[in-house]
Amino acid sequence: MHEFELIQHYFSSQSSAASSALPFGFVGIGDDAALLPISDAVSLAVSTDSLLEGTHFFADMPPRALGHKALAVNISDLAAMGATPKYFTLALHLPRVNESWLSEFQQGLFACAKDYAMTLIGGDTCRSQQGIGINITVMGEVNRQHSLLRNRAQQGDAIYVSGHLGESALGLLGLQKKIPLDQAWLTTHYYPQPQIALGQALLGVAHAAIDISDGLLADLGHILKASGVGAYINHQQIPLARSSQNCPESLALQCALTGGEDYQLCFTVPAAQQAAIEKISARFALTKIGEIVAGNALTFDPPLPNTLDSQTGFRHF
Amino acid sequence: MHEFELIQHYFSSQSSAASSALPFGFVGIGDDAALLPISDAVSLAVSTDSLLEGTHFFADMPPRALGHKALAVNISDLAAMGATPKYFTLALHLPRVNESWLSEFQQGLFACAKDYAMTLIGGDTCRSQQGIGINITVMGEVNRQHSLLRNRAQQGDAIYVSGHLGESALGLLGLQKKIPLDQAWLTTHYYPQPQIALGQALLGVAHAAIDISDGLLADLGHILKASGVGAYINHQQIPLARSSQNCPESLALQCALTGGEDYQLCFTVPAAQQAAIEKISARFALTKIGEIVAGNALTFDPPLPNTLDSQTGFRHF
Repeated sequence: MHEFELIQHYFSSQSSAASSALPFGFVGIGDDAALLPISDAVSLAVSTDSLLEGTHFFADMPPRALGHKALAVNISDLAAMGATPKYFTLALHLPRVNESWLSEFQQGLFACAKDYAMTLIGGDTCRSQQGIGINITVMGEVNRQHSLLRNRAQQGDAIYVSGHLGESALGLLGLQKKIPLDQAWLTTHYYPQPQIALGQALLGVAHAAIDISDGLLADLGHILKASGVGAYINHQQIPLARSSQNCPESLALQCALTGGEDYQLCFTVPAAQQAAIEKISARFALTKIGEIVAGNALTFDPPLPNTLDSQTGFRHF
Repeated sequence: MHEFELIQHYFSSQSSAASSALPFGFVGIGDDAALLPISDAVSLAVSTDSLLEGTHFFADMPPRALGHKALAVNISDLAAMGATPKYFTLALHLPRVNESWLSEFQQGLFACAKDYAMTLIGGDTCRSQQGIGINITVMGEVNRQHSLLRNRAQQGDAIYVSGHLGESALGLLGLQKKIPLDQAWLTTHYYPQPQIALGQALLGVAHAAIDISDGLLADLGHILKASGVGAYINHQQIPLARSSQNCPESLALQCALTGGEDYQLCFTVPAAQQAAIEKISARFALTKIGEIVAGNALTFDPPLPNTLDSQTGFRHF
């Protein structure tokens, strides 16, 4: 665990002042979003995420992309719960007021809000003594019986991912001029598209789901740990980045496994839902990459090529 | 308006992607908290506020006080709506991991959470390249018929405030060694006590309410503007800081009028609720300081002493 994950753990362990008073069906810290039962039929899904200059983005990131991404990474947490996006709050910390920057930023932010039918309900704008900071809290609604959780994976479930993995990381490497930049990767890096419609389609079909923000291995690892199961992955089935022929194959695979920030979904599906998932596959680009097994290990079958930088590649593991 | 208020206004004006889809009873940006109707009887009150090192607090602020205050200033927004605190999310941005600092911070945070029966439901902890930043979003529940809003003040209403005003600002001046430091002021500055019980008692009694975060004049000004009314204030009735005999009288008055961060409530009460408010006064320290009148001006009767620094004193106005 990273030191910042340790802190998160530290807070989580005492999150509840009076857990006995919590409503039935309450889900607190530890999934993509908290679930607050607000009626017999509906839970409110709530999640929060920050983007900080220097930590999550460079100062020269186009403000329109930043406005989009700051909201999109939060919406992605709602997608992983199968929730319908509704509302968000925005805390914006700025070292100075730059009108053209602000105009571009809000255009990206509200275009994303419009795409996902979200309404800004509260804000806090203040001067930062240093870099730009953005914190967004999103709220969505989800069927109280049918939300997607991390801890429901079962032995025998097939493991699926949506889209192509590793594009955002390759886009970042391209921006850093370490490899030639491909426009499709950059678009994924700057304008990730949260998989809301897919998340909703998976309600009642998938057992467990998570969004791929930290990288496939780390995020699938969260499902395995929360569910108390293991998995095997056929790495040859993993849907690599588009145009990945333009970079070393081992780099494309490494970025797919550990790159993160693609904001696709990883989820597990029981055999009984085979027909349902094939129907959903007709609407979304889904790929079966492995299976949930007993135990707690994640193995590769066939084994990973030894050209992979295991030091970097398994940092999260 | 300050430039950061202008930004807030800028975002507020386009907060809604699809306002036609908003539920009846919805209140968006512009009050102390947004109100989201979640059932026939209940609305969810949501508010967000940040504390940033260098802007809102000094790096040497005791971490326990910081943990308390970061949550308390948000709870105060719920108090101003008459809401019952329920849940909060925490975004914590730290330049480095300092265990003893963190331990103190979380003790202050969770002691406050316990006092107000709040549960932490989500968090985002990450490395800041510079100073400490804290953003909290709070959620509470309020009766859908009886919440307290800013825009309901009516001509003839009496204007009340709770507690003593100006203590937080005097505490800050004491910390800066500009005046002798009084312990009571420092406690108010570091450990403000949001007026949740009072806010709830005022449901169905007060017409309009706001919490005093920016200073009495600025915050009463928000009520007047939102309600389309004016007011007069008898400044001799304003409850000054305890121990205010230990500083120049004009400074105590100026801090009460414009200091802010006391997190008391300012509210307006119709004549028909005279008996009810007297009953409530027996439980809370309430002071009548003026009356809502026609027009849009805030006047003083008697006039303010001309020793007041009107430049500083009316910055917000």
